[in-house]
Amino acid sequence: MNRPDNRELNPPARILMGAGPSNVHPRVTRALTLPIIGFLDPQFIQIMDDMAELLRQLFGSTDSFALPISGTGSAGMEAGIANLLEPEDTILVASCGFFGDRMAEMARRSGAEVIKVSAEWGQAIDPSLVEEQLKANPRIKVLGVTHGETSTGVLQPLEELSNLAKEYETLFLLDTVTTLGANPISADSLGIDFAFSATQKCVGAPPGLAPVNLSQSALRTIAARKQSPSTWYLDLGLLKGYWQGRTRVYHHTAPTTMIYSLWEALRMITEEGLEERYARHQVNGQALRSGLIALGLRLLVPSEICLYQLTSVLIPDGVNDVELRTRLREEYNIEIGGGLNQLQGKIWRIGTMGESSSASNVLLLLSAFENLLPRLGFPVDKGSGVSAASQEFSSAI
Amino acid sequence: MNRPDNRELNPPARILMGAGPSNVHPRVTRALTLPIIGFLDPQFIQIMDDMAELLRQLFGSTDSFALPISGTGSAGMEAGIANLLEPEDTILVASCGFFGDRMAEMARRSGAEVIKVSAEWGQAIDPSLVEEQLKANPRIKVLGVTHGETSTGVLQPLEELSNLAKEYETLFLLDTVTTLGANPISADSLGIDFAFSATQKCVGAPPGLAPVNLSQSALRTIAARKQSPSTWYLDLGLLKGYWQGRTRVYHHTAPTTMIYSLWEALRMITEEGLEERYARHQVNGQALRSGLIALGLRLLVPSEICLYQLTSVLIPDGVNDVELRTRLREEYNIEIGGGLNQLQGKIWRIGTMGESSSASNVLLLLSAFENLLPRLGFPVDKGSGVSAASQEFSSAI
Repeated sequence: MNRPDNRELNPPARILMGAGPSNVHPRVTRALTLPIIGFLDPQFIQIMDDMAELLRQLFGSTDSFALPISGTGSAGMEAGIANLLEPEDTILVASCGFFGDRMAEMARRSGAEVIKVSAEWGQAIDPSLVEEQLKANPRIKVLGVTHGETSTGVLQPLEELSNLAKEYETLFLLDTVTTLGANPISADSLGIDFAFSATQKCVGAPPGLAPVNLSQSALRTIAARKQSPSTWYLDLGLLKGYWQGRTRVYHHTAPTTMIYSLWEALRMITEEGLEERYARHQVNGQALRSGLIALGLRLLVPSEICLYQLTSVLIPDGVNDVELRTRLREEYNIEIGGGLNQLQGKIWRIGTMGESSSASNVLLLLSAFENLLPRLGFPVDKGSGVSAASQEFSSAI
Repeated sequence: MNRPDNRELNPPARILMGAGPSNVHPRVTRALTLPIIGFLDPQFIQIMDDMAELLRQLFGSTDSFALPISGTGSAGMEAGIANLLEPEDTILVASCGFFGDRMAEMARRSGAEVIKVSAEWGQAIDPSLVEEQLKANPRIKVLGVTHGETSTGVLQPLEELSNLAKEYETLFLLDTVTTLGANPISADSLGIDFAFSATQKCVGAPPGLAPVNLSQSALRTIAARKQSPSTWYLDLGLLKGYWQGRTRVYHHTAPTTMIYSLWEALRMITEEGLEERYARHQVNGQALRSGLIALGLRLLVPSEICLYQLTSVLIPDGVNDVELRTRLREEYNIEIGGGLNQLQGKIWRIGTMGESSSASNVLLLLSAFENLLPRLGFPVDKGSGVSAASQEFSSAI
């Protein structure tokens, strides 16, 4: 066997301020190196049980079934769709961006009927559109919503949608990929029946697992299915046989090292405290927003509905999208994200998520912008961004 | 948030001689700790390209499309089934155990018609049964076969089945979960259209990825599908858009650290050499078999069709299955596997896979058996197992 080349694997130590993955704490990295043990080892079962309890708390549940699916966030989305829906069912997807559209596409593939209401990219869903559909289509079984739309940076208000789901007795499916760990989820009080997330954004672990949380109502729905889901790998009924109960039934080999890293990330979240963690994400996001605005940049999403952990900046006329991101990467070792689909070339997405959410990262990014933007044709008032952000940090203390 | 308990994560350093996961080399563990970078970072794309080339070679292909699926081995199985089959298609599954039956179950869920021929557990598939079905059902589109049946330890001879697949122009789908890295796959010469595997057995990495390999014919079949696969997460057409071509299209966030560990494991395979690696697995397996036989134990699978990396031992009458495995774990820190389904309580499965395939592990396991079996009611000739194995090692030099 010939190697394409014989170099050492040597990825650079980037500052990850894109839409994920984020940086992870060295403690989480160290957890990856712990000895691998068998997936039915009594000590591993204990780790699974503890992890389920920690995830349940993070999702804001007490009697739910929580587990990390062995795949990335999209596998969590697919697990929800494939297990809650049967081909004759109807789902209402409220989409305000790329990932809402993905949910609709997955639902289409499941064979269910898909009704979609949309918001303009950069806006939140208007609950009256949802109510209109729920009223007109009493057979809607699932309402699918994106809590944090990673393509735009919108945080969807959930209160009214939650009330509608309760009133019309639909299952409430929520994409918390970008919000878990940075925003409260409150699955119990909001009546969220299925929430899915990812590890590499605000939870603080590497990419590779999809934490999910199922209400008792979701579990009953799955138990009452007329036919098994088309997916065996993501069959939550089978996964429950491995994750719960006195006798654990082998389903697939658990990704041991990923589980260890998620465990350590969850442990660090408990040490930090949930409220403190949510506040940290908010303060750093607010400082970043103030700094960017002080530089004369415009933001896509108004502060009332913004994700503080993911800030979308409109690219100023005349500034080359790719060139800025390349220079940021090559000169500053910073990664930020570009826009997706209709927002490609129109926005940058700057993440301050998990371990990447720090005052120093915010200040560094603003300094880099202050230096690079004028060279790319967009004059800025040097120091104004850093100064505005610093003021936010001072007033937050 | 309250932790169930506040202990450090502290899994024991077991000697993993079950049916997987196996131990990994410290170099592979170290690779897990390399810095995470973005999934569209030019340096990550380079890593992906190199990895695809290495996987292709390991599968014995030159012009295939190879990638590691972001899930465990069963996700690789599901990817093959879900992408090659459409609901009106027919698959012939040749099952000789638990994992062949799993393949048939996945195929059933895909909506395709499933024809199954079976061998007794512990035996290989008789090619004439396959030919009979291929002759009787000209519409069979896919022939699904298990190369190494992990539930029994059978290595399925492929030559005749390969000829049948060619003669009857069916796609050839092969489960190489337990064979990749320990047995030659030769995808090109055997005409294997879709092979899937896992990282945690004979490839030498932690569990979490499913290397797969697609022939050009499989790619054409997928491109010509009438409808998209029911799975979006495992849609190989979409995954190809991320893994190949000049412009990479985002599909899902790659599990960075897992990719690093697989890269390093593949690098170690190139350093060892494929022939040397296959020989190592065979010698250690032969020594183990000789030692077990010398102890008076009987093996499930005859040497002509056995997996040397996974040895199935019939549990002697009167010896308690669980007690032996518990003592092995607690007194010797060794994990071995029990039997699945109809073989539960009837066999032990002893793995000598990847990094776990070493002379020292074989000798240690035999010593432990020599010590434990008499205490559990099965008298053995002390030293006979170790001595028989040592003789095999000497003659192999």
